[in-house]
Amino acid sequence: MSNQRLFRQKFTGRRVLITGGLGFIGSNLARELVRLGARVTIVDCLAPAYGGNRRNLAGLSRRVRVHIADVRDRKKLPGFVRGQDYLFNLAGQTSHMDSMSDPDTDLEINCRAQLSILEACRHHNPGIRVVFASTRQIYGRPEYLPVDERHPLRPVDVNGINKLAGEEYHLLYSDVYGIRSSVLRLTNTIGPRMRVKDARQTFVGVWIKQALSGQPFEVWGGAQRRDFTFVDDAVEALLLAATRREAVGRVFNLGGCGRVSLRQLADMVIAAAGGGRYTVRKFPADRKKIDIGDYYADDGLIRRELGWRPRTDIRTAVGRTVVFFRAELPHYL
Amino acid sequence: MSNQRLFRQKFTGRRVLITGGLGFIGSNLARELVRLGARVTIVDCLAPAYGGNRRNLAGLSRRVRVHIADVRDRKKLPGFVRGQDYLFNLAGQTSHMDSMSDPDTDLEINCRAQLSILEACRHHNPGIRVVFASTRQIYGRPEYLPVDERHPLRPVDVNGINKLAGEEYHLLYSDVYGIRSSVLRLTNTIGPRMRVKDARQTFVGVWIKQALSGQPFEVWGGAQRRDFTFVDDAVEALLLAATRREAVGRVFNLGGCGRVSLRQLADMVIAAAGGGRYTVRKFPADRKKIDIGDYYADDGLIRRELGWRPRTDIRTAVGRTVVFFRAELPHYL
Repeated sequence: MSNQRLFRQKFTGRRVLITGGLGFIGSNLARELVRLGARVTIVDCLAPAYGGNRRNLAGLSRRVRVHIADVRDRKKLPGFVRGQDYLFNLAGQTSHMDSMSDPDTDLEINCRAQLSILEACRHHNPGIRVVFASTRQIYGRPEYLPVDERHPLRPVDVNGINKLAGEEYHLLYSDVYGIRSSVLRLTNTIGPRMRVKDARQTFVGVWIKQALSGQPFEVWGGAQRRDFTFVDDAVEALLLAATRREAVGRVFNLGGCGRVSLRQLADMVIAAAGGGRYTVRKFPADRKKIDIGDYYADDGLIRRELGWRPRTDIRTAVGRTVVFFRAELPHYL
Repeated sequence: MSNQRLFRQKFTGRRVLITGGLGFIGSNLARELVRLGARVTIVDCLAPAYGGNRRNLAGLSRRVRVHIADVRDRKKLPGFVRGQDYLFNLAGQTSHMDSMSDPDTDLEINCRAQLSILEACRHHNPGIRVVFASTRQIYGRPEYLPVDERHPLRPVDVNGINKLAGEEYHLLYSDVYGIRSSVLRLTNTIGPRMRVKDARQTFVGVWIKQALSGQPFEVWGGAQRRDFTFVDDAVEALLLAATRREAVGRVFNLGGCGRVSLRQLADMVIAAAGGGRYTVRKFPADRKKIDIGDYYADDGLIRRELGWRPRTDIRTAVGRTVVFFRAELPHYL
């Protein structure tokens, strides 16, 4: 069965909750689920430093129910999870630097709220199917490349530690309480609706904003090789993880549509934007400490087990992202 | 240099803080540090469900400063860490079952408080030397035996997840902020001053209490093989980790003084107690889910790197523990 047929069968008319659904990946996922005929509910706190943006649902606001609420507000969680068929649990604090300057807030969102969400599922909707968005940050600096799921875990920032706890809670509640959960470890994801006003989500956003505004941007280091996932491919992986039985209780890396150095990527941004320039500079000392250097994932497991593969090459991914922001940039500043 | 000479040189006249210092391992450590001439301060909340017991400092109360305080009370932490040369960070929630029935409290103690302690060190005493007591529970069910430090981490209860976060915070603050920290992953530790009133710390405590009280005890399963560390050996490992430069920023398994099945251990308890009996029963369903089966550690790393080795064989360890509780049992019920 094709993925599209599978998704229609599994999601048409079904109730789907997305935490962080006004954010970058969450809103792209919501759009796809609406297209598939799902009844989508979003919980998002719209905190200014995070990825949520009402513009992300442009043209869709009548077809999605949106609650502006914080997943830290545990009293509200039972009401949100009750009656849902699926939960895509994407709400998170994503900034590595913020996790170091304010570790407590990162812990509240990435640990405690996750535990509260799972407790709400356990007590109010144990039949729900859950997908948790984790991060390659939990591996820390790679000991070998590409990084597979058995790579040692040694996060280099508080964010990575707390996300690790978050994914372990999901696996535990799956194993012990039967709350069927899957975990995807995302790498750099790019695409329409990403945060571009600063580097809290990814530095690539800032590059695109600067290039489109006719401003130079900075590339730190530049030789680091990374892989990037186009958001449509990440969305497909989320849907596969939610619908394939083989995914229950398991962790999968997402890989990308190409491995490039940051300088190569910067050149692609400039080519797509039709101009611009950047300077290469040394890493600032405080960021160097939590930088992971080269990273690219071995995504063989999700390819073999769930039949996922990234469909969008890196140049196309950058191109589509730039096209989106050329029209939309004012709404994202 | 012998360990004893090293310890005298490093600890005589030095200021040492022990969180959880009225507990089983903490109080044995405090006694040894007092013997070495250290100026010991203890922080312990004496929560009834945890390991703290004033009796553990019997005969020593004038030579140790004790604060009855909770490590969750973050306002007090700067005052505690300021001016200390060493911190043995042993305060924790240890019950696997309690972590499942009340995951939030486990998170408060084993995650948030750890982060607060490290933040206090960072801002008020960055030169402090820290040793964190972690647990073999973070490995989950062994994929191979003996379990070395590179074994995959898949905790089977909330306690294991939160302890994992706790150790990662310590390593991170060591790497990023230079708060020199070491982590020991303890296995079952037994000895004088262990909690015997229930199984919150270890089931062996209950066995000893029952045998000494002339009551039968239950062995669940019985064929599981485990290793056990005598508390004096664990104390020596803690002191080595605090004093050896090679230990900074690193994680070490502690191994034991022998691998035995639980039935063999039960027989040793009865032999040491001079009588008693036990029944073997199947694991209760809710505990089976979070039981890890066979476990024994590969402790080659700490042997090679720090020169530690367990000195007390399992039979001697059980014997000394039983001798202690034969005299002291009324103070531990």
